[in-house]
Amino acid sequence: VGPLITLTTDFGTRDSYVAELKGCLLSEGPPGLRMVDLSHELTPFDLFGAAWFLRAAVPRFPAGTVHLAVVDPGVGSARTPLMVRLGQQVLVGPDNGIFGLLYDGREEVFAIDSKSLSERPLSSTFHGRDLFAPIAARLADGGRCEDHGHALSRYERLPWLPLVASEDGIVGQVVHIDRYGNLVTNLEPAQLVALGAPAELDFQIKGATIRGLRDHYAQVARGELIALVSSSGLVELAQREGSAAARLGVERGSPVRVTKRS
Amino acid sequence: VGPLITLTTDFGTRDSYVAELKGCLLSEGPPGLRMVDLSHELTPFDLFGAAWFLRAAVPRFPAGTVHLAVVDPGVGSARTPLMVRLGQQVLVGPDNGIFGLLYDGREEVFAIDSKSLSERPLSSTFHGRDLFAPIAARLADGGRCEDHGHALSRYERLPWLPLVASEDGIVGQVVHIDRYGNLVTNLEPAQLVALGAPAELDFQIKGATIRGLRDHYAQVARGELIALVSSSGLVELAQREGSAAARLGVERGSPVRVTKRS
Amino acid sequence: VGPLITLTTDFGTRDSYVAELKGCLLSEGPPGLRMVDLSHELTPFDLFGAAWFLRAAVPRFPAGTVHLAVVDPGVGSARTPLMVRLGQQVLVGPDNGIFGLLYDGREEVFAIDSKSLSERPLSSTFHGRDLFAPIAARLADGGRCEDHGHALSRYERLPWLPLVASEDGIVGQVVHIDRYGNLVTNLEPAQLVALGAPAELDFQIKGATIRGLRDHYAQVARGELIALVSSSGLVELAQREGSAAARLGVERGSPVRVTKRS
Repeated sequence: VGPLITLTTDFGTRDSYVAELKGCLLSEGPPGLRMVDLSHELTPFDLFGAAWFLRAAVPRFPAGTVHLAVVDPGVGSARTPLMVRLGQQVLVGPDNGIFGLLYDGREEVFAIDSKSLSERPLSSTFHGRDLFAPIAARLADGGRCEDHGHALSRYERLPWLPLVASEDGIVGQVVHIDRYGNLVTNLEPAQLVALGAPAELDFQIKGATIRGLRDHYAQVARGELIALVSSSGLVELAQREGSAAARLGVERGSPVRVTKRS
Repeated sequence: VGPLITLTTDFGTRDSYVAELKGCLLSEGPPGLRMVDLSHELTPFDLFGAAWFLRAAVPRFPAGTVHLAVVDPGVGSARTPLMVRLGQQVLVGPDNGIFGLLYDGREEVFAIDSKSLSERPLSSTFHGRDLFAPIAARLADGGRCEDHGHALSRYERLPWLPLVASEDGIVGQVVHIDRYGNLVTNLEPAQLVALGAPAELDFQIKGATIRGLRDHYAQVARGELIALVSSSGLVELAQREGSAAARLGVERGSPVRVTKRS
Repeated sequence: VGPLITLTTDFGTRDSYVAELKGCLLSEGPPGLRMVDLSHELTPFDLFGAAWFLRAAVPRFPAGTVHLAVVDPGVGSARTPLMVRLGQQVLVGPDNGIFGLLYDGREEVFAIDSKSLSERPLSSTFHGRDLFAPIAARLADGGRCEDHGHALSRYERLPWLPLVASEDGIVGQVVHIDRYGNLVTNLEPAQLVALGAPAELDFQIKGATIRGLRDHYAQVARGELIALVSSSGLVELAQREGSAAARLGVERGSPVRVTKRS
């Protein structure tokens, strides 16, 4: 059975960049390599969005998977190229925070030593193809992080977005807006227990109030707003079969206030 | 050789949903599993569009393929999760009509028994990841539908869109608008034989009249409208190297009148 | 280890066309076939764009790869269906120039003999599915070009876009605009050496002047314009973490004038 490499980028697929990555992986990786596209549609240069994506996706994959992730506005500058060992998986990409939401204190982080790819030409603008993909190919072929770099103790972290206690409740924020216009927040249901029972909670966002924390979309009529627990385990504000983001004019970072109904 | 699972969703790839599905399939499926992306760009919540897509795609695949299809506005509600045995292939997804255009009287339909995945947590908002993918993984691993559910005799069907006979011809409709702006209709060429020879037919849509049923786009000049037999075997109205949909302002459901030229 | 077929089209994935291709390849190809999506988001009918894409992607792939490429506005007309042997790889697609930028004098070009697929129905509108995919499947299964067609000496070429010498420098043009809005030109750095050292060159485009040829984006501040060597080896004009194309209002074909700073 061939080893697995996943690909996550902000390259889109109109250009040849993803195709060039794949060609390199197949040319330099082990026979039978299986490549899995996770996304090439991440927002260009959006490091938090990439970190958020990887936080949800990576834990779902089996032991031995190599994840190649390239959102890299600083390509060619001094930012360090990384390998990260996380449980039984390995991540490869730039040290700019994109892996930050996966760090749990058990990660082992390595700086790639580009000399370990001695004879290759290294462009200044496409490390995905010329550095990260060749390293990912070697790791998928049984190489160890220690063979291609050295341990690193200082690297970019990404702090989780804290909640704020207000006079009568808790204020969180929208951390992700999905394709459907659903608003995923940084509110964990367990953090709301002290405020009241799920049915007693009010969620206020951009002048709208959503009553109660529900289980699934079909509990309200089409077109109505609803608060429920998203598939990520966090509170999500949604419009059934519509876009809450468009309806409310919300952006990432918009505050969400939770109170107990009085 | 690894078994095949295809993926068809309305998730897009900007969010982590497809990636989470893939991680689950690889974690729970057989070694060497091959995943094939069919589409993640189906229109959100568009059940007819999904059914239309699957109608064209599924019959092209080899025996043994498992098709995972998730367009699921009713997730978490009472709609039944399905397995469908269709010839030598199996479909997995919600019972909301998305498989309806594939039913030919020989389908065997099963309700998934979620207890067959006993210890797994089941979210209320993402059955694709928590229910359909694990079932698809088991079916790809040699599991039988009978092992994971029970036969079902009542399930959502999707009636084919009928043609209407008019005084001087036949009225059909646009059932799909493709990326190029080509208009695929529900008119079958065999149904038009009684009206006249292909060259004698007139197709009227939104005030425009297209003369004759042709073979291929290059039979008219660039920018001209043409009626021809699409790759699905149905009549298609198109503009050569342009968008008939944009030019005519047509939507799905727009009527198409066929008459014999007088 | 299964053979490799790559897919490059302008089909998008909203429609079933790519899925139908994949089904055919898996049904007719060798066991263990690995399919690799390069792009389905090429601009519809844009032959130069497709040729540009393939020029960058194809050389990255390993020996034995079969590349299926379908951008085919002339489908059904007299344009010849092709197989091209290029080093150890094979290309399959229409003879309309999409392979033109890969030809280096060593290519061996064959016209597909559709009778080699004797019993298959051949639609007039979807040769990707009915002709090119079955041929690609046979080539991936060890078939030889000679088994499915005959050598061709006249076929569509695509001339490289020449530079123009002006009184005080060189005039090139924008040949590709990528997802980020970066402007890739037909200027090769070696051609500019006679004009002056990299730091002495001025690039003029749409009234803007960009000073010097740099190495990587981070050498200028966010939002500033920069000229550098792109990952393709050609000169690229970019805005750091922004879109030069949007800022300058540039299209493919826009002239770029290079002079030595006086």
